[in-house]
Amino acid sequence: MTAKGDKISIGILGASGYTGADLVRLLATHPNAEITLLTANTQAGKPLAAVYPHLGGLDLPDLIRGEEADWEGVDVAFCGLPHGTTQEIIAGLPERLKVIDLSADFRLTDTGTYAQWYGHAHRAPELQTQAVYGLTEHRRDAISGARLVACPGCYPTAALLLLLPLVAEGLIEADDIIIDAKSGASGAGRSVKESMLFCEVAEGLHPYAVAGHRHAPEIEQELSGAAGRPLLVNFTPHLVPANRGELLTTYVRLAPGRRVEDLRRALDARYADEPFVRLVPEGAVPATRHVRGSNFCLLGVFADRLPGRAILVSTLDNLVKGSSGQAIQNMNVMFGFPETTGLEQQPLFP
Amino acid sequence: MTAKGDKISIGILGASGYTGADLVRLLATHPNAEITLLTANTQAGKPLAAVYPHLGGLDLPDLIRGEEADWEGVDVAFCGLPHGTTQEIIAGLPERLKVIDLSADFRLTDTGTYAQWYGHAHRAPELQTQAVYGLTEHRRDAISGARLVACPGCYPTAALLLLLPLVAEGLIEADDIIIDAKSGASGAGRSVKESMLFCEVAEGLHPYAVAGHRHAPEIEQELSGAAGRPLLVNFTPHLVPANRGELLTTYVRLAPGRRVEDLRRALDARYADEPFVRLVPEGAVPATRHVRGSNFCLLGVFADRLPGRAILVSTLDNLVKGSSGQAIQNMNVMFGFPETTGLEQQPLFP
Amino acid sequence: MTAKGDKISIGILGASGYTGADLVRLLATHPNAEITLLTANTQAGKPLAAVYPHLGGLDLPDLIRGEEADWEGVDVAFCGLPHGTTQEIIAGLPERLKVIDLSADFRLTDTGTYAQWYGHAHRAPELQTQAVYGLTEHRRDAISGARLVACPGCYPTAALLLLLPLVAEGLIEADDIIIDAKSGASGAGRSVKESMLFCEVAEGLHPYAVAGHRHAPEIEQELSGAAGRPLLVNFTPHLVPANRGELLTTYVRLAPGRRVEDLRRALDARYADEPFVRLVPEGAVPATRHVRGSNFCLLGVFADRLPGRAILVSTLDNLVKGSSGQAIQNMNVMFGFPETTGLEQQPLFP
Amino acid sequence: MTAKGDKISIGILGASGYTGADLVRLLATHPNAEITLLTANTQAGKPLAAVYPHLGGLDLPDLIRGEEADWEGVDVAFCGLPHGTTQEIIAGLPERLKVIDLSADFRLTDTGTYAQWYGHAHRAPELQTQAVYGLTEHRRDAISGARLVACPGCYPTAALLLLLPLVAEGLIEADDIIIDAKSGASGAGRSVKESMLFCEVAEGLHPYAVAGHRHAPEIEQELSGAAGRPLLVNFTPHLVPANRGELLTTYVRLAPGRRVEDLRRALDARYADEPFVRLVPEGAVPATRHVRGSNFCLLGVFADRLPGRAILVSTLDNLVKGSSGQAIQNMNVMFGFPETTGLEQQPLFP
Repeated sequence: MTAKGDKISIGILGASGYTGADLVRLLATHPNAEITLLTANTQAGKPLAAVYPHLGGLDLPDLIRGEEADWEGVDVAFCGLPHGTTQEIIAGLPERLKVIDLSADFRLTDTGTYAQWYGHAHRAPELQTQAVYGLTEHRRDAISGARLVACPGCYPTAALLLLLPLVAEGLIEADDIIIDAKSGASGAGRSVKESMLFCEVAEGLHPYAVAGHRHAPEIEQELSGAAGRPLLVNFTPHLVPANRGELLTTYVRLAPGRRVEDLRRALDARYADEPFVRLVPEGAVPATRHVRGSNFCLLGVFADRLPGRAILVSTLDNLVKGSSGQAIQNMNVMFGFPETTGLEQQPLFP
Repeated sequence: MTAKGDKISIGILGASGYTGADLVRLLATHPNAEITLLTANTQAGKPLAAVYPHLGGLDLPDLIRGEEADWEGVDVAFCGLPHGTTQEIIAGLPERLKVIDLSADFRLTDTGTYAQWYGHAHRAPELQTQAVYGLTEHRRDAISGARLVACPGCYPTAALLLLLPLVAEGLIEADDIIIDAKSGASGAGRSVKESMLFCEVAEGLHPYAVAGHRHAPEIEQELSGAAGRPLLVNFTPHLVPANRGELLTTYVRLAPGRRVEDLRRALDARYADEPFVRLVPEGAVPATRHVRGSNFCLLGVFADRLPGRAILVSTLDNLVKGSSGQAIQNMNVMFGFPETTGLEQQPLFP
Repeated sequence: MTAKGDKISIGILGASGYTGADLVRLLATHPNAEITLLTANTQAGKPLAAVYPHLGGLDLPDLIRGEEADWEGVDVAFCGLPHGTTQEIIAGLPERLKVIDLSADFRLTDTGTYAQWYGHAHRAPELQTQAVYGLTEHRRDAISGARLVACPGCYPTAALLLLLPLVAEGLIEADDIIIDAKSGASGAGRSVKESMLFCEVAEGLHPYAVAGHRHAPEIEQELSGAAGRPLLVNFTPHLVPANRGELLTTYVRLAPGRRVEDLRRALDARYADEPFVRLVPEGAVPATRHVRGSNFCLLGVFADRLPGRAILVSTLDNLVKGSSGQAIQNMNVMFGFPETTGLEQQPLFP
Repeated sequence: MTAKGDKISIGILGASGYTGADLVRLLATHPNAEITLLTANTQAGKPLAAVYPHLGGLDLPDLIRGEEADWEGVDVAFCGLPHGTTQEIIAGLPERLKVIDLSADFRLTDTGTYAQWYGHAHRAPELQTQAVYGLTEHRRDAISGARLVACPGCYPTAALLLLLPLVAEGLIEADDIIIDAKSGASGAGRSVKESMLFCEVAEGLHPYAVAGHRHAPEIEQELSGAAGRPLLVNFTPHLVPANRGELLTTYVRLAPGRRVEDLRRALDARYADEPFVRLVPEGAVPATRHVRGSNFCLLGVFADRLPGRAILVSTLDNLVKGSSGQAIQNMNVMFGFPETTGLEQQPLFP
C-alpha cells in the first residue's frame, strides 16, 4: 500500500511485540511516515488496538499474517520478529525494500560467533555481510546508504555509546572493562514466561544470564573494532522491577597518564553536536527516569576512590534509544529526514 | 519576554511541581508555543534541569522568583501554585494576560462552599465570578472567550466526562451515585510527606480522605448544574502504588425505563467527535496503562448483575488530561489553535 | 509417612502454587506440624527449593506426583489444586484423612449454582454436602468436627468477616451492597498468562471480571444465609500493582433508625475476642501494608456524607488470611491446637 | 521495667524508624524476650501502633522520650538512633546494661577514619575501643562476652560474609575488588526526603553516593584486617524500586593458581554449619526475593568469561540480616539463647 503525499510507506513485521508497539507509538507523530502494513502471525485478523488498547486512538491497518503482506508501494520494513526467524524472512523480501531489523540476526558479522551464541548456522550469510550495524551516532554514513540496517541490542547501545570513544582514543585499558547492567522487565519482551510474571519480578532483584548473555559478543565485536584487536568484556545483566529503563555501571582502568577528566572531556566533545546523547553535568547522576519514553542516552563519568580507575554510567530507555527509537533514527538517516523527526518526545517523569 | 514568529509566549508560575514539569514536557513539542518565563520561589536561580533532569535536553529560561517576573510580551500564564496562594497572585497579574489556573482556587463558584472546604474566605471573589470552569469538552465556547480558566481537578475531570451527559439526559438516578476512585502517587504532587515515601506507598493500597476529599464539592457543583438541583455524591479515593493514572469505578442506578445500552449509546454519541474522550468497545476494559502520558480519557459501561444498575469506568492520566494536558487543550481553544496541537502523544506502554 | 512426637503429619497436594508455598512458609514455624508429603505433578522429582528457592533453608520431602502419594500415617491433607480438578481427587482419598481444601470446589452448597459458575456438573456432590465452609470466626464449631473443610475464597473472607455480623443483626439494607474490591497480583496464582506479566501489571490499574467474578455467588450464599432470604451483591474486583494484599471498600445503606456508630459497635463487639480480626480505631484507615504476610483482617467503618449511608473497609493478605493462613487456622481448630499456633507472625512492613 | 519469668527485658531507643519497627516485629515472636521500653522523641506519648499500624496487634508500652527512660530492670538496649547522636546517649546509659547499637557510631575503630567520613570528632572514643563489631558469623566469641556490640551496616554485612573468607584464605586479589551494590528504598530509613518519594523512586534506577558511601571504609576496615594490610575497594551503591532487599555483585580477580571452584568450596565449607548463610547450588542465582523478611544471606559464585576472574553475588534483607535480625542474632549470642531463636521466619514470597 502506498502512503500519501510526502510520506513514506512503512510496514512493520512482528508488530505485536513491545518493540512493535513502540514503533507505532513513535511513528504516529512522525510527519513523514505512514504505517500501511502490520503483520503479527498469531494475532492476524485483529486490529492492533485489540492487542494494544493504548493505541486505540490511531487509524491503522489491521494485523495480517506475514505471508499475506503485499509489499507493493512500501518503502521500508521494520522487522520486530524473534531472533533466528528473521533471516529467511528478510531474505525473501523485495530487493528494493529497505529493511531495518530490530532482531539480533544481523548484528554479528562473524558467522562463527553467531552460530556459537545462537545455536545454529546463519541462514542468510550473504545478507549478513551487507548489513550495517545501526549505532546511529557512530555509523551515520554507512547507514545513510544501506539497504539493510541491523539495529544494536539495547545493552550494546548503552555500552557502546559510552565506551567506543574511550577505547578508540586509547583513554582506558580495553582489557579490563566490567559492565554491570540493570534493566527493567520490558527488555524481555512480551513473551509469556513464569519468570516474568508480576509476582516474580516486583519487589525483587537478581542477576541473570551471568557470563552468558548474547549481548556480550556484540559489545566485544564493536569494541574490538575500535581497539584494533580482539577484546573480551565482563557483561553482567540484572533484572530490576521497572517497566522501562536500562542503566549500565561500567568500571574501567585509566590508560597510563590519563585522568578521569580526560574521559569526561572526550565524551563531551564527541557528543557535543548529537541531539540524543548527552554527558550529564559534573555532580549530577544519570537515572533511568530521566530518559523514560525518550530517545535520549545520558552518560556520566565519576572518579573512583581507587587510584587509576573510573566509574562510568550510561542510561537509556531500552524500548526507545535501545530499540524502536534508534530504529526510527536510522530510518530518518536512510531517507534524508532531519534525524530528530518523530523523536522529539521528552522523557515521561514521574 | 516575547516569543518569536507565530508562537505565543508562555509563562509558568510554580514550575517546580509535577504539573509544572508536565506542562514543560508537553509544550516542548507544541509548534505554536514558546516558554519564556518560569517561576519557582524555592528553586529560583537554578535551571529547570537542576530540578527536573529529565528536561535537560531543552533550551529554557532559568527559574526566577514570582515577584521578579516581567510579564511584558507574555501572552498566557499557567498557574501551578499551591491551593490558596494562587488567588492573590492572579489578582496581581496584568489584566491583558490570559491565565490558565491548575490550582483549585477558582473551581468552586460558591464562595461559601469554597470557605467550607478550604478553610478560609476566598481572597479574590471578584475574579472567581469571571473564571470559566475548564472542562474543555463541556465548556468550549466559554473557554474560547475567557480570560481566566480554572482547570478542573483530576478526579472531577474523570468523573464529569463520564457523568455529565448521563445526568443531563436523565439516564441515571442522580441521587444515588457512588464513585470509588483510585489514583497513582503523582496526584499528591511533589510535596515532601512521610505518607508519600516510596516505602509507605509501594506494595500498599488504602483509601484516604474518606468522605472528606475536596474534589467532592467540585463534582457535585457541576453535576448539580446538569441536574438542575443540588446533588451530593459519594466520592471515595484510594492510593495505589503507581506513578500516574487514575481510574474511577462509578456505581449508578438506572433511571426508570432505562437500560445499560442507553448509557453506552449516550456516551458514544456525546463523544463521537471528540479527539480525546473515547468509549471503549464492548467487552474491553479501560485501564490506566492505556492512557499513561497521554491526554486521553477512556470510558467504559458495564451491566451490573444487580437489576437496574450499571457499573461505569473512566480513566485518565492525572497529570495530563487531569491537569497539564487539559490546561494546554484549553490554551489551544483560547488562542484558536487546533485543539490537539501539542497533545498528539500516544500513551506510553509498557 | 508419620510425623514424630506430638506433631501431626501433613500432606500438601498441589504444592507448587503460591498458596502451597505459603502453607509451607507458615507451617515451617508451627510446633505441632510436620510436612511429610508434597505433590506437584508438573514438577515431580524436584526438591521444592528448585521451584521456590526462598524455601531452600527447610528440610522437606521432594515433590512427587499426586498418584504416587502414600497416605499411610498422614493426618491431614491440604489441597491447593486448581478449581475443578480437586473434586475427584479428594473423593479418592482415604476416608480417615482430614482434608482442608483451598480450591473453590466445595464452597458452593448448591450444585446448580456451582454448575452455572464453573461450567460443569459437580463431580463429587456427596462430598459437597459434607463440606464445612471454613470461615473460622463464624463456623468454629462445625469446623472442629469436620472431615472436609472448604476454605473461603480470599475476597469472600474479606467481605464476609465485615458483612456477616451487620446483615445478621439487620443493621444495613442487605439488598443494596456494593463491594469495590482491589487485589494484588498474587491472587491470580502462579499460572503463566500474558495479562499477568510484570509489564502488563506494573504502573497499571483496571477492573476485571466485571459483574462476573466467581466469588460473587460465594459471598451471596453466605449473606443470604445470614439474612434468611436470597440476596445479590455488586462485587467488582480490580487488579493493583502489588504482590499481596486485598482491600474491599463496601458501600452500604443503613437500616432505618440505624447510625454509623451502631455498625462500629457491632463489629467491635463481634470480634473483641478474636485474635485475627480487628476494627481499627476511629480516624485510622485500614491499609494492605498493615496486614502483609500476616493472618490479620482489619476492618474500618466510616460515615458517608450521603445521609443514611456508610463506607466500610476490610483488608487482609490474600495468601494468608485469604488462603493458607486461614487454612492453618482451621487445621488448629480441627486438631485442638490453640488457634493462633504457627500464625503469630506480625505483618511485614515496609 | 522488669520482664516476667525466663524472659529478658528489652528497651529500644529510637523505635520509630524502620529498623525499630522490624526489631519489634521479630522480637514479638521471640520466646525469651519482652519489650518493656520504647523511646521515640518526636512521637513520645503515642502508642507504637499510631506510628506503625501494622504492629497494632501487639501489647506494647507507649513511646516515651529518651530522657524519660527508666532502665531499672532492663537487660539490654537496642539503639536505633540516627548516626552521630548515639555516642553520647550510650555513654550515659547504666554500665551494667548491655547495648546493641544499630547505628554507625561504633563500627569504625579508627577515630580518624570516623571523623573523616562522619564530619566530626567521635564523642565517646573510650566506648569505641570497647565495641565489638557485630558480624555474628565472624565474631561470635567476642560478641558473647561484649557489653557493647556495633552491628555492621547492611551493605558491609552482605559484602563481608562473602569476601572475608576469600580474602583471609588468599583466594582472590584483595586489591582489585569491585562491589556493585543495589538496594531497595528502606535502606534510606523513614526520613522524609524528596528523593525518596514514591514518584522519585518507582519505575527508576540510579547510582548514588558514587565513590563516597560511608559503608566503604567499614568494608575496607574489615577486609584489611583479614588481609593483614590496608585495602581499598570500589563500592558503588544503586537505588532500585523495591521496599526491601539488597544484592551485591562483586567482581574479583582470582589469586594466582586459584580457580572459581576453590572460591565455591571455601564458602561452602566456611558456612556449612551456619543457619543463616548459605551458598546457592551451582546453576541457581541468588535473588532478593529469596530472602525477603528473613535473616538469611545467600551467596553465589560464578565463573567469569574473562580468564582469571569470578563474579560473586550476595543478597540479604537489609532490615533483617542487614540490621534488626542480625542485632537479635547478636542478642541471642550475648544471652546464651540458641542463635536462631526468634529468627526462624521463612522469607515472604511473593
